[in-house]
Amino acid sequence: MDATHTKGRVTIPTDVDVVKETIELVDRWGADAIRDCDGTDYPEELRHVDAKVYSTYYTTRKDNAWAKANPDEIQQMYIMTPFHTAVSGEVKIHLMDHLYPDMLKVNSHDDITRWWEVIDRTTGEVVPTSQWDYSEETGDVTIRRTLMFHDYTVSFLAYIMWDPVHMYNAVTNNWENVEHQITFDVRQPKTKAFSMERLRKYIQDNPHVDVIRYTTFFHQFTLIFDELAREKYVDWYGYSASVSPYILEQFEKEVGYPFRPEYIIDQGYMNNTYRIPSKEFRDFQDFQRREVTKLAKQMVDITHEYGKEAMMFLGDHWIGMEPFMEEFKSVGLDAVVGSVGNGSTLRLISDIPGVKYTEGRFLPYFFPDTFYEGGDPVREAKVNWVTARRAILRKPIDRIGYGGYLKLAMQFPDFIDYVESVCQEFRTLYDNIKGTIPYCVKRVAVLNCWGKMRAWGNHMVHHALYYKQNYSYAGVIEALSGAPFDVKFISFDDIRQDTGLLDDIDVILNIGDAYTAYTGGENWADPVVVSAVKKFIYHGGGLIGVGEPTAYQWQGRFFQLADLLGVEKENGFNLNTDKYNWEEHPHFITEDCTKEIDFGEGKKNIFALDGTTIIKQIDKEVQLAVNEFGKGRCVYISGLPYSFENSRLLYRSIIWASHEEDHLHRWFSTNFNVEVHAYPHNGKYCVVNNTYEPQSTTVYRGDGSSFTLDLDANEIVWYEI
Amino acid sequence: MDATHTKGRVTIPTDVDVVKETIELVDRWGADAIRDCDGTDYPEELRHVDAKVYSTYYTTRKDNAWAKANPDEIQQMYIMTPFHTAVSGEVKIHLMDHLYPDMLKVNSHDDITRWWEVIDRTTGEVVPTSQWDYSEETGDVTIRRTLMFHDYTVSFLAYIMWDPVHMYNAVTNNWENVEHQITFDVRQPKTKAFSMERLRKYIQDNPHVDVIRYTTFFHQFTLIFDELAREKYVDWYGYSASVSPYILEQFEKEVGYPFRPEYIIDQGYMNNTYRIPSKEFRDFQDFQRREVTKLAKQMVDITHEYGKEAMMFLGDHWIGMEPFMEEFKSVGLDAVVGSVGNGSTLRLISDIPGVKYTEGRFLPYFFPDTFYEGGDPVREAKVNWVTARRAILRKPIDRIGYGGYLKLAMQFPDFIDYVESVCQEFRTLYDNIKGTIPYCVKRVAVLNCWGKMRAWGNHMVHHALYYKQNYSYAGVIEALSGAPFDVKFISFDDIRQDTGLLDDIDVILNIGDAYTAYTGGENWADPVVVSAVKKFIYHGGGLIGVGEPTAYQWQGRFFQLADLLGVEKENGFNLNTDKYNWEEHPHFITEDCTKEIDFGEGKKNIFALDGTTIIKQIDKEVQLAVNEFGKGRCVYISGLPYSFENSRLLYRSIIWASHEEDHLHRWFSTNFNVEVHAYPHNGKYCVVNNTYEPQSTTVYRGDGSSFTLDLDANEIVWYEI
Repeated sequence: MDATHTKGRVTIPTDVDVVKETIELVDRWGADAIRDCDGTDYPEELRHVDAKVYSTYYTTRKDNAWAKANPDEIQQMYIMTPFHTAVSGEVKIHLMDHLYPDMLKVNSHDDITRWWEVIDRTTGEVVPTSQWDYSEETGDVTIRRTLMFHDYTVSFLAYIMWDPVHMYNAVTNNWENVEHQITFDVRQPKTKAFSMERLRKYIQDNPHVDVIRYTTFFHQFTLIFDELAREKYVDWYGYSASVSPYILEQFEKEVGYPFRPEYIIDQGYMNNTYRIPSKEFRDFQDFQRREVTKLAKQMVDITHEYGKEAMMFLGDHWIGMEPFMEEFKSVGLDAVVGSVGNGSTLRLISDIPGVKYTEGRFLPYFFPDTFYEGGDPVREAKVNWVTARRAILRKPIDRIGYGGYLKLAMQFPDFIDYVESVCQEFRTLYDNIKGTIPYCVKRVAVLNCWGKMRAWGNHMVHHALYYKQNYSYAGVIEALSGAPFDVKFISFDDIRQDTGLLDDIDVILNIGDAYTAYTGGENWADPVVVSAVKKFIYHGGGLIGVGEPTAYQWQGRFFQLADLLGVEKENGFNLNTDKYNWEEHPHFITEDCTKEIDFGEGKKNIFALDGTTIIKQIDKEVQLAVNEFGKGRCVYISGLPYSFENSRLLYRSIIWASHEEDHLHRWFSTNFNVEVHAYPHNGKYCVVNNTYEPQSTTVYRGDGSSFTLDLDANEIVWYEI
Repeated sequence: MDATHTKGRVTIPTDVDVVKETIELVDRWGADAIRDCDGTDYPEELRHVDAKVYSTYYTTRKDNAWAKANPDEIQQMYIMTPFHTAVSGEVKIHLMDHLYPDMLKVNSHDDITRWWEVIDRTTGEVVPTSQWDYSEETGDVTIRRTLMFHDYTVSFLAYIMWDPVHMYNAVTNNWENVEHQITFDVRQPKTKAFSMERLRKYIQDNPHVDVIRYTTFFHQFTLIFDELAREKYVDWYGYSASVSPYILEQFEKEVGYPFRPEYIIDQGYMNNTYRIPSKEFRDFQDFQRREVTKLAKQMVDITHEYGKEAMMFLGDHWIGMEPFMEEFKSVGLDAVVGSVGNGSTLRLISDIPGVKYTEGRFLPYFFPDTFYEGGDPVREAKVNWVTARRAILRKPIDRIGYGGYLKLAMQFPDFIDYVESVCQEFRTLYDNIKGTIPYCVKRVAVLNCWGKMRAWGNHMVHHALYYKQNYSYAGVIEALSGAPFDVKFISFDDIRQDTGLLDDIDVILNIGDAYTAYTGGENWADPVVVSAVKKFIYHGGGLIGVGEPTAYQWQGRFFQLADLLGVEKENGFNLNTDKYNWEEHPHFITEDCTKEIDFGEGKKNIFALDGTTIIKQIDKEVQLAVNEFGKGRCVYISGLPYSFENSRLLYRSIIWASHEEDHLHRWFSTNFNVEVHAYPHNGKYCVVNNTYEPQSTTVYRGDGSSFTLDLDANEIVWYEI
């Protein structure tokens, strides 16, 4: 272990009222970069401190004068009203119902007959524009000649009059008398020209800044507040707020077919990532990626022209800047920084190709929701660090950082101490593993409709947040984020384009609920996909299905690979068939389990086919089972929330599915609270205690030799190979 | 209460070895009819006893000489093999795998290229007959030029070489050295002519018989045994064993389109009642009903010609004799007898229109599975009687009876005593309510794809049996079977034909899992249906949805009537929408609940819309909620197994949904273990204790006046109005 005090790889926030404290932290935390934040300013006195200076730069807001002078180029979003039932021949729909009035303004400036759509949701048919109109005065759309008891919705465009993240920050921090920042659209002609000049001016006016931290480029992820200023709708991956007639006309030209609001509205589901994406929406995303990255490149080029670095914050207005897609590399960004909520979101940053360095912004954010009297920011910091560290050990970010009000954090000396140790630990870790690929036991591929575009973000709704319906699936991704596997995210389209890609994979995972993009729905009725996956398994590949894998009601089966997985779902259609296979069997996969397995939400009504080995069933509902098909092996798991014990269960599942039981004891800890990571190229390996208590374990080296070890809480120990 | 010992309305079984006992029971139980059973014979000595004599008559078996002489007219069934995956260019499928070898014989006598079908289940396409053949020698179908990793099935015809019920009886009773009875097909020409003569001869040879108890007419419900003689597949409503090329050629002519085996096979689901029936299958059922009833009428006419009564057993070979459909009345049957498993199956018999009388065969059947040393037949008899009594009080059968080996029952004197009291109680009850319609508080309609054709049999798989996936829904039907409502079973087609039929209904119920015939699936995307139901509610009607009511993924909703029910299912597509409505509220519906409500299997992931009143949610999953729409009221229940407490919850739901809270206290017992039934036309009412313990309650009369009452266990007390 290297105990010397090192410096670097750490970014801290500052403000005009914490100059002394900033300088103190630069020393104690070894910080080599200082940043401002939304609601803070960079102090004059720190302009010459020995650290890089980051400056958050808002491409789309913080210039209301411009926005107000050019109201036609304010950003817009598509919104669908609730359903309204016709109980007479006329229906009136007030568009702004249940929307925060200061945030949005109906766009009736552009041709509403072209850009809005009234739909009969009972039939799915579009209501002719001759049958409805909009009153500026009342804010109502009136639909005439409605069919009795049919439901109607209006899809309309609204201007974003208060930037959603600015509003969120203002509401969360009780900012008073703050002017609502309007979101303007850099994609549109006047604002585009203006924005390039504005950027140049900003860089010229701030010579002390080394790094322009773009927050971000152009389009906010979908975030809407209701009439009580509560979050109403959020999709961290949502494209609904990246639209405008100007953009959509270009889109029409490019794709060669007419645009329909429904392509964005998607029955009100707004093409969230659970939806199996339509061709038109994929076309739109492709178009946006190309256009957004092209424009972002112009800003990055200007940044470089002035000798500054361009850093992108992966959040806020990041829509269209898909970091795992080809276009992203062309932008020429120097760095990406993102918020680290857990291991998955760490990998969401650290796995990004094509930038010089990545930085993780750790939690807690120095906001009063955590840093209040009686609050416990150390606990949050510990959880955040230890959770992320597993993932860092697989694929490190290059820097760590913090954000918010430094003044708040300084009131918690324990917190300052703890983060000092984290910074030191990170630097040691980074030095030991930099530039190398860690030892990977197996190559696994997560198969869904999104593939690499949503790598590490599977089942994510709002950034790193828990949802009752996602934790049992997101847990698998979280386990993988710190596991010694080479993890790929592949799509059904990838398989259709090249079935050979499965040759480089040991185990396929298909995780989620039926009919979602995460399991794939109708893709499992495509003979190309089904045959390719079955061939892969038959010849010795592994398949792990979690939840309702391969589900699609088609030709006598709900799980299309039921015969491989060895399980099927009872949806009523199989009740007539007697089921005799209910006996549980001990198995390699569960040999390290210490208690009842936590399947999270699990699944109901799963039964085993004849010949399947049930490992666990609860009240005649199969939770865990294995089956063989040809030379291949399949594992069914009903759900797997993240925990160290479940992470081990997944590890053993992958090992078993790839016929590697005999080599389990390589770079392995018998105690699942402790993990071993090896870096053969650097001649190092480490043993890391992921818990907040001391742990004892037996550590196996790569050659199968072993030793026992006691670790302190959270301890990481480094060894030479 | 009438304590005099009366006689009649009771049927008992007999056999050659229990003559004395039979005579004793005729006296003690007041029996006025004696029957034989499968495996018993009618004793010579009883030919002149003062009681009607029933004789079970098997139209389709008990004449192996005929069957063997006419093998082409042995009954047949369609069977689909399991899925076989092609791992080379050829797949061999052994048709008899996993089938009991003595029960079925592959029919390769008829043109297999016409009557069999090989299907690529990966694509759903039929494999040309030129690509496969069948070997008599190996029993295999060999499919050539198969597509790699596609799945294949063979749909084929098999002769029924051992009648499934005869086999079941033989296996259950360990009958040894019994010749397997072959099922011959009365529909086919030679057997038809033979059968009519056989019937005449039988009646002539058995002049002591008063009632021919047909068991039954022609076609066995689907029942298959596996290679270990275990039940493999059972569908009490199944039509798969009612087929033959002879019949199917007639079917083709009638409907005017070519028959396909797939119309029966249905991807292997065999058109079980959970499947939304296809047009072709409905056509086939219609055809079978017409043809079966036409032929049954010929036998009934012969029966009458000899001055005998014709009674049909509702079981075994009852397929095509749908008792609630129009054709049934035309048969001219005198009586129907059926097994009583619970209240629902009681109503399945007692509600049959168009016969002179109905009889319920009560449990336990006198078989060694219940009547063994240490067994408790009294307990089973009590449960059966008390459960059925609720339904009898709504719509009485005209007679009760028992079946099996009387010798076994005589060894349990307590049982003989108990049934004696049941017989007496039944006669009193029948005298008090005969010929009258009991007071109905409300008119409710169970809406599904089957309507009256599956009245009282909703969610039934095998007769009256529990299934984990049906008890939470069948419980509602069971509750209704003994509740003071006028219960209709209506179909979506009924609504399409005449939306006005809803005018005569107070509350609609839609009960079951998504995409099953019991909730209706795609029918909820039919604007005619949806608009009619919404109109009905809007103008003051009630809707009770249980499980996944109105579910069909269409135009932004999973529950198509989500806005009415006030709840929706989170299937991943709504995760982005924030949900703030989780607070529970006290409500009229649950005012009698004494403990945590038992929702049975319940449902996961149900959330409430804004404005909905949640009565119960568990861990943010709504179990019980109410909502208003126009003048109408809707109730959502996640599941409702049968219990007295749940029956009360349903009762209150119906009362609330129909705005009758103010009139709850009419013919009402405050204690839900006790029920009140009124018969205004006869000037009687009764108070009945449904439990095996004494109960105290307050009884409300129809005018709202009340009195308190203590009842013994199971007691029924009769009053004059």
